[in-house]
Amino acid sequence: MRLAELCAETGVPAATVKYYLREGLLPVGRRLSATRAEYGPAHLERLRLIRALIERGGVTIDGVRRIVSAIENPPASRHDFLGEAQQAIDGPPPPVAVSAEAQEAVERLGWPECQPARLAHLQAAMDTAALAGFPVTVDRLVAYGQALEQVALFDLEALAADPRSATPEGALTHVAVGTVVTDAVLVALRRLAQEHESERRFASSPAAAPERATAAPT
Amino acid sequence: MRLAELCAETGVPAATVKYYLREGLLPVGRRLSATRAEYGPAHLERLRLIRALIERGGVTIDGVRRIVSAIENPPASRHDFLGEAQQAIDGPPPPVAVSAEAQEAVERLGWPECQPARLAHLQAAMDTAALAGFPVTVDRLVAYGQALEQVALFDLEALAADPRSATPEGALTHVAVGTVVTDAVLVALRRLAQEHESERRFASSPAAAPERATAAPT
Repeated sequence: MRLAELCAETGVPAATVKYYLREGLLPVGRRLSATRAEYGPAHLERLRLIRALIERGGVTIDGVRRIVSAIENPPASRHDFLGEAQQAIDGPPPPVAVSAEAQEAVERLGWPECQPARLAHLQAAMDTAALAGFPVTVDRLVAYGQALEQVALFDLEALAADPRSATPEGALTHVAVGTVVTDAVLVALRRLAQEHESERRFASSPAAAPERATAAPT
Repeated sequence: MRLAELCAETGVPAATVKYYLREGLLPVGRRLSATRAEYGPAHLERLRLIRALIERGGVTIDGVRRIVSAIENPPASRHDFLGEAQQAIDGPPPPVAVSAEAQEAVERLGWPECQPARLAHLQAAMDTAALAGFPVTVDRLVAYGQALEQVALFDLEALAADPRSATPEGALTHVAVGTVVTDAVLVALRRLAQEHESERRFASSPAAAPERATAAPT
């Protein structure tokens, strides 16, 4: 298909598609003449991926560049692809000093193999929380970590079951893209879980009634 | 303290502080003369909160506006604050049609009380994932949801234990700010949990060795 069709099919303006081509996010088409090129299903798929990541996944152009580069240059062994994919979506580790709390939490969780880069990202999130007046305790890290082991268990099962992940490229795409887009699912479900737990505590149980009455306006 | 001290203390440029004042994100100081105002610890705290939310929590100015407005106009009863806080951080529900998959998942999770707005945010995240080539199955939603019940349990315990949450304002601040900043902690821990689970599967167990060998370069 031509550029105009690619745009019509995806709703992406031509100027934007040309920008992605210049930036190398979208591979160039098969040249037909000095001014025309032909695009195929792979371009359509890549363009949809870029738009989903940027528009709705909140990924920056730099993040997309890292993901695309990782997809196009997959690591040689399966052993490395997870770390590569994580670096593609999260970027280089922030320059923070990992706290004793973070260290203690991964020890209590039994995660001795965790990489310094992963820990640095965790520490940066903890530093932000502390700066906003919500220091994260070791107990919170351990409670969250145990819950997320279940999430990771599901993630790795799904990865193994995905026929696309038979190749390193496919596995990397699955982890990088699949993780970014399901981060948002996880966060949305957390809101529902909080609502459920709050309902259970404050609305359904008779013991909560006085508490509500106290907080009600006079 | 004067504006210059407020800036020096927080590292925020004067032009930015003035922007927050104009936008109503930061309350105006006590006026000393036509051109000078006095700021107190509450201003310092608010400014730190705004910076933490924007710079490191990835919250937009609109999001900060919603959080600040919710903190300054807390809901009358404790029963409502969670929904108010969630709306403050996530904004109005996106205009999406909730799928049968999402409905089935909340039924299987036993979350009958969930609000349409919360479900719409979940659906939007699911739509993004599908658009990126990763449709979210009911099984995934249920697995994630069960894990997040543990997270929510911890969150509500921590809320109840926080002396600041005795007032509706305090409880709302705790939920709105605490949830935004710990979303990033949750996501960072998810990466560590994936790494742990991947290590357990592909590196430590002897069964994984042939798989690695297959993917290795020749």
